[in-house]
Amino acid sequence: MSNIILNGKIIKKVKVKDVVFGGEKPVVIAGSCSVESREQIIELAKKLKVIGVDVLRGGAFKPRTSPYSFQGLGEEGLKYLKEASEITGIPVVSELMEASDIELLCKYVDIIQIGSRNMHNYSLLKAVGELNKPVLLKRGMSATIKEWILAAEYIAYYGNKNIILCERGIRTFDNYTRNTLDLAAVPIMKKETGLPVIVDPSHGTGIRELIMPLSLASIAVGADGIMVEVHEDPDNALSDGEQSLNIDQYKDLFNKIIY
Amino acid sequence: MSNIILNGKIIKKVKVKDVVFGGEKPVVIAGSCSVESREQIIELAKKLKVIGVDVLRGGAFKPRTSPYSFQGLGEEGLKYLKEASEITGIPVVSELMEASDIELLCKYVDIIQIGSRNMHNYSLLKAVGELNKPVLLKRGMSATIKEWILAAEYIAYYGNKNIILCERGIRTFDNYTRNTLDLAAVPIMKKETGLPVIVDPSHGTGIRELIMPLSLASIAVGADGIMVEVHEDPDNALSDGEQSLNIDQYKDLFNKIIY
Amino acid sequence: MSNIILNGKIIKKVKVKDVVFGGEKPVVIAGSCSVESREQIIELAKKLKVIGVDVLRGGAFKPRTSPYSFQGLGEEGLKYLKEASEITGIPVVSELMEASDIELLCKYVDIIQIGSRNMHNYSLLKAVGELNKPVLLKRGMSATIKEWILAAEYIAYYGNKNIILCERGIRTFDNYTRNTLDLAAVPIMKKETGLPVIVDPSHGTGIRELIMPLSLASIAVGADGIMVEVHEDPDNALSDGEQSLNIDQYKDLFNKIIY
Amino acid sequence: MSNIILNGKIIKKVKVKDVVFGGEKPVVIAGSCSVESREQIIELAKKLKVIGVDVLRGGAFKPRTSPYSFQGLGEEGLKYLKEASEITGIPVVSELMEASDIELLCKYVDIIQIGSRNMHNYSLLKAVGELNKPVLLKRGMSATIKEWILAAEYIAYYGNKNIILCERGIRTFDNYTRNTLDLAAVPIMKKETGLPVIVDPSHGTGIRELIMPLSLASIAVGADGIMVEVHEDPDNALSDGEQSLNIDQYKDLFNKIIY
Repeated sequence: MSNIILNGKIIKKVKVKDVVFGGEKPVVIAGSCSVESREQIIELAKKLKVIGVDVLRGGAFKPRTSPYSFQGLGEEGLKYLKEASEITGIPVVSELMEASDIELLCKYVDIIQIGSRNMHNYSLLKAVGELNKPVLLKRGMSATIKEWILAAEYIAYYGNKNIILCERGIRTFDNYTRNTLDLAAVPIMKKETGLPVIVDPSHGTGIRELIMPLSLASIAVGADGIMVEVHEDPDNALSDGEQSLNIDQYKDLFNKIIY
Repeated sequence: MSNIILNGKIIKKVKVKDVVFGGEKPVVIAGSCSVESREQIIELAKKLKVIGVDVLRGGAFKPRTSPYSFQGLGEEGLKYLKEASEITGIPVVSELMEASDIELLCKYVDIIQIGSRNMHNYSLLKAVGELNKPVLLKRGMSATIKEWILAAEYIAYYGNKNIILCERGIRTFDNYTRNTLDLAAVPIMKKETGLPVIVDPSHGTGIRELIMPLSLASIAVGADGIMVEVHEDPDNALSDGEQSLNIDQYKDLFNKIIY
Repeated sequence: MSNIILNGKIIKKVKVKDVVFGGEKPVVIAGSCSVESREQIIELAKKLKVIGVDVLRGGAFKPRTSPYSFQGLGEEGLKYLKEASEITGIPVVSELMEASDIELLCKYVDIIQIGSRNMHNYSLLKAVGELNKPVLLKRGMSATIKEWILAAEYIAYYGNKNIILCERGIRTFDNYTRNTLDLAAVPIMKKETGLPVIVDPSHGTGIRELIMPLSLASIAVGADGIMVEVHEDPDNALSDGEQSLNIDQYKDLFNKIIY
Repeated sequence: MSNIILNGKIIKKVKVKDVVFGGEKPVVIAGSCSVESREQIIELAKKLKVIGVDVLRGGAFKPRTSPYSFQGLGEEGLKYLKEASEITGIPVVSELMEASDIELLCKYVDIIQIGSRNMHNYSLLKAVGELNKPVLLKRGMSATIKEWILAAEYIAYYGNKNIILCERGIRTFDNYTRNTLDLAAVPIMKKETGLPVIVDPSHGTGIRELIMPLSLASIAVGADGIMVEVHEDPDNALSDGEQSLNIDQYKDLFNKIIY
């Protein structure tokens, strides 16, 4: 394979404030699919803080399959997310959808997420490659292992090695779950790239009750952390409610993961 | 399905200069994967002109899986493509990879291509939706029929209904061919959207000798045209040589398609 | 590849009474998914005879996903099928599901079908390999090209080279159609094995209105024939009604294929 | 779904001599892909016995993709397997490939395996449904969750509820691993059927070094056991050597799973 910069040689830790991806403790990223309002994200952040959480997630620019679905609050959402971060001291991650928004994102977030639909978006990979902010690179929903490695290599090629990989399920013939979570990818990617790898069982299954067992399996297989969607009222979430944990379920999960 | 603007009602023809997509005659788009030099694209255009061709293709911004592969000539490539167009009178199509290049593309090309890797790139779909230039929307390599319809709907939603769809194969478990060409998608998309649909058997198979039979099958299944890669010396092409026809093979194909 | 006996060298025709697979004229196999009753199959055979048909199909042993679905009439169904054959002079094909039924099948039918679910059933392949009756080998729904070639090789290895291959769609992520018809497989299998290849657009799409365009595409891509499901009253068929043509639709299709 | 007999209601344990599938302790099935000789299987059984093992596996009838690959020792292999069982006291499992061999299998083995390629072989499912011996039902390599449930339902429908399910990976576009292990299937199948579910990470990955992490993940996700291939000299195994553990690796795995 032509991953020349990465290639498993450097066992790399990625640090975000006090949080270490690839260290001894698994990292827990939690939050809502979308930032829905100032109150919503701040309240959620406070509750997660009490239970325990390493990084807060919240989408502001949302890649939605239909133009008629909620598209996110945009910059307003980023502001609320940053406010939630400042109040609680928890670093935040949000998704970048086009290169021209990169300065905006950098102003508000600690980790820039490249979503599954953009893993093959080489313009975007180049743009985040020129930053030195940590990048969370989700696997494309139909990306082979080799393509995913090369997407990370693009970012490293342009100078940024602060990359956290995230397995989030691949598209297969089966339709019981939203995607098929490919946990073998975790030890494979750690070996091939040397980068930290986390798992997103929310998108990886699309089914709330599967998040707990797949989170435990992720840690057992060697993942450096998990990323889960949490909502105070999942049935009324503006997006992805069916795969979001409520606060009590999150508490239960966090305690099982950490202890 | 929530395709409200499109939904099969309007049988729409897309006109590009004198070329009509969705008319009685199938349209043939041919050219090289990448514009490799001024001479290369002009020579190729002249030869295709003699044989017969409706639209010339040539990539200037190339979405390559590896950062170490040839990335295209960029604006320089677009200039050569336009020059080839002016000399021969053939309209041209080239791929847009990021929204910020849209004015550049518009200056040089007659049809803007959204490639397979960007079908889910909603920022890009929005950007071309705000133009009134024709858009060639390739199917994402793992896009369901529904997702492809909604990607077209995004473009229409932002105001541009000059959309030409292009089936180019989907990713499956089989690895004999580069992709699995899904010809059932042609009558399905025509019915669901009312838009013209063409087929790209070069990417759809990745194998030179399969281009002819699959082109004939595309026309038989009801496609409004085909898009094929042609190179004067396929074995020395800078990209996609193994799936490019040489000039004689193209001549043979063109004659079988048109008569 | 280790297809030593087959391997494209011998361009082989398979003869079934007066019908030649791999000859100049495409072969049309038509009939109902299941033999439903004596009257049903005889009436259907007579109507198909008037329109034109080369081989009559009718299932007696049915591989059904659920034990609660209609399982076929068994030997009774085979008797009716043979009676329909004798009345009309049309040769018949039916599916073998276990090796112990092989003598029974041989008594009643002219071509033995190995269905998609049994393409990997090596005991069955060995059993039909020891016959000299023609075998219709459908592609497994998730079989790679290589596995399909080797399944044919099994039959040839045990001595029977009267093999007709049938592409019937593969399982992919897309769920608009029942399967994804892989028409590139037709020229590939002809080249790799030298055997005649037909296409089943009924199972390949699962949608009645797609049978016509995909049949035309099959012939255009070089198939040696097609196999379609026909029912006098598709809405009340005991199985596969939604992908069966009615008599008028079949007439229309037959005339387009043959002339 | 039409799984009427199973449907998650009965939390069922399957007992094989002293071994309980679905009890508190995970079950470990280990052994070689094929029984290669009397000495090989007896020596292996003795070594596994010392380390710890619940059930010994050994293939006698092998479903091989190519007719030119080693096809197994047949009844001779079963005899050696039984001898190994008698010497060590470990119960044994082996695969049934055709219904006519069922009495033979029953004479020699404690658990009858239905392999992945035969999950859709309804004749075979019916045959084992009429026994009261435990059946190990592997998931078809391209079986949906629903189809797998219905395959188990076939067995139950014909009277046998002593069913152990085994996830062994599904076929996807990715080719780094032999299959994609679908660990979400474990909690899903337990809930939908109430049956014990084990995991086969050897076939599920095809890569020796991935067996350990995926075994740990299997237990973490809630599997009732694992099935792994072990060989004293994997590089010289007659089949599946690249996915077999050596004795030391097995010892390491067993200790991590059990304690």
